[in-house]
Amino acid sequence: MLDKTKRYLIVGLGLLGGKYALELSKAGFHVDGINRSEGHLQYALDHGYIASGKTHDFEDLVSQADHIIFGLYPTALIDWFKTYGHLIKPGCIFTDVSGVKTGLVEPVQAMCPEGVEFIASHPMAGRETSSVEHAAEVSFAPANFIITPTEKNTPEAVQWAKELAEVLGFRHICTLTVQEHDKMIGYVSQLCHAIAVSLMCANDNSSLCEYTGDSFRDLTRIARINEKMWAELFLWNKENLIAEIDQFDSALDQLRDALVADDRDKLEEMFRLSTQRRAAFDKKDS
Amino acid sequence: MLDKTKRYLIVGLGLLGGKYALELSKAGFHVDGINRSEGHLQYALDHGYIASGKTHDFEDLVSQADHIIFGLYPTALIDWFKTYGHLIKPGCIFTDVSGVKTGLVEPVQAMCPEGVEFIASHPMAGRETSSVEHAAEVSFAPANFIITPTEKNTPEAVQWAKELAEVLGFRHICTLTVQEHDKMIGYVSQLCHAIAVSLMCANDNSSLCEYTGDSFRDLTRIARINEKMWAELFLWNKENLIAEIDQFDSALDQLRDALVADDRDKLEEMFRLSTQRRAAFDKKDS
Repeated sequence: MLDKTKRYLIVGLGLLGGKYALELSKAGFHVDGINRSEGHLQYALDHGYIASGKTHDFEDLVSQADHIIFGLYPTALIDWFKTYGHLIKPGCIFTDVSGVKTGLVEPVQAMCPEGVEFIASHPMAGRETSSVEHAAEVSFAPANFIITPTEKNTPEAVQWAKELAEVLGFRHICTLTVQEHDKMIGYVSQLCHAIAVSLMCANDNSSLCEYTGDSFRDLTRIARINEKMWAELFLWNKENLIAEIDQFDSALDQLRDALVADDRDKLEEMFRLSTQRRAAFDKKDS
Repeated sequence: MLDKTKRYLIVGLGLLGGKYALELSKAGFHVDGINRSEGHLQYALDHGYIASGKTHDFEDLVSQADHIIFGLYPTALIDWFKTYGHLIKPGCIFTDVSGVKTGLVEPVQAMCPEGVEFIASHPMAGRETSSVEHAAEVSFAPANFIITPTEKNTPEAVQWAKELAEVLGFRHICTLTVQEHDKMIGYVSQLCHAIAVSLMCANDNSSLCEYTGDSFRDLTRIARINEKMWAELFLWNKENLIAEIDQFDSALDQLRDALVADDRDKLEEMFRLSTQRRAAFDKKDS
């Protein structure tokens, strides 16, 4: 069980950082916060998500922390670490919430002061909304929590991340390598968003609003997107995402070729395959 | 209001044909049925969806009908009509449920005996399930009913189709030309299905089941597909569907190019556009 005498620090009180603060405070941990904007910091204070917090001159909060959670985009995390990373005290184990790991985990681990350990993790619980004001709406129970240890990590840090996830309410906790994680996320999340966005951008379909049924709405729900965050995530994982787009594109090309050739057998074969594979997913649901 | 002394005949007691029979019988109309398989005909009889029905030697049912609803695929409808169309009596107004209209409406209207009128329509209420045994689960209230009149149609027939849709429980009833309908359906329905199928076929993703979140599930829900029906619908509307695939593909290409070029501005621009357009849909919902 996580040690309740340890001091937690959340850097970046956004949607996920805010939710971590809320859950940890509720569970009885001491949680401080650092946030760039005064308004959201005040919100977190007013709602008891954090015990204390600062927007600047926060060196004391950093050097007192036993555990830090970075609720920042990868680029911001690396910038922050270059400036303040040296303040982190020996023995501190910290994690992040970032949706991509390649290009982030290795440099940050390399920058860690002696005795400080970065164990990366990804709570797969994004939403269309952002900001701490929506943090309470986030539900961790049905989401995956993925820990991505490297050869630099100790079993103790991995164990800490697992127990953290349990305290936060996750029920599906697993570990993947950095590479496995980013390949998986390129397919199950980023490719889906790329498709939904392209579908909306392909056509000024506003005149078709009244005819759309469930299929179109299902496919485009995730086309409402936080553009700063997703541009960041896409670019940080571009090799994987491009490979997934190409693989998808080649399947769509096959379907198009079958149409051009009036190849009913090929179409039916693809439909049977997709039905079969999708049915396997539904089985996992129940 | 629809005349309750008229005799209705449903040809093809599948999911939609069965639902039409059920709703019309419930509303007090006399409904007969013709179906190829004995089992489903018996189901419709046992559940009171039809007053009487036949699998063959059904010439009398055809020539007695004042209104016919064809619950058949386009190819089957045309074949049936070539063989039995001459039996339909003068004054009969009939419709279909087909998801594509080009290539169907004109030839069938051309084959109509003197005094017989075909007013085409499309109840946009498909489901992953098929067969009359699931007919009762179909919900028409939230779905669109689209009537596609041509210059051959009379205002009386269009009015009949509207009143039929009302009796069936549709609340969104509109008219489009055959060309408008097929272009719209190529985009809001068929392209979505082509994408979902391609996404499932692109990758043997069974090992990723445990990591999939809502986005992947939303995008692939419609990848469970009745392969016979959808091969038929895709091929009957192939010009429109190919054009939509190409337009979508070019948007996805733009996104891919932006990734390759590290063009964050272009990505953010596409994300803003998709967010804006998708938000307009949600407004229509509420």
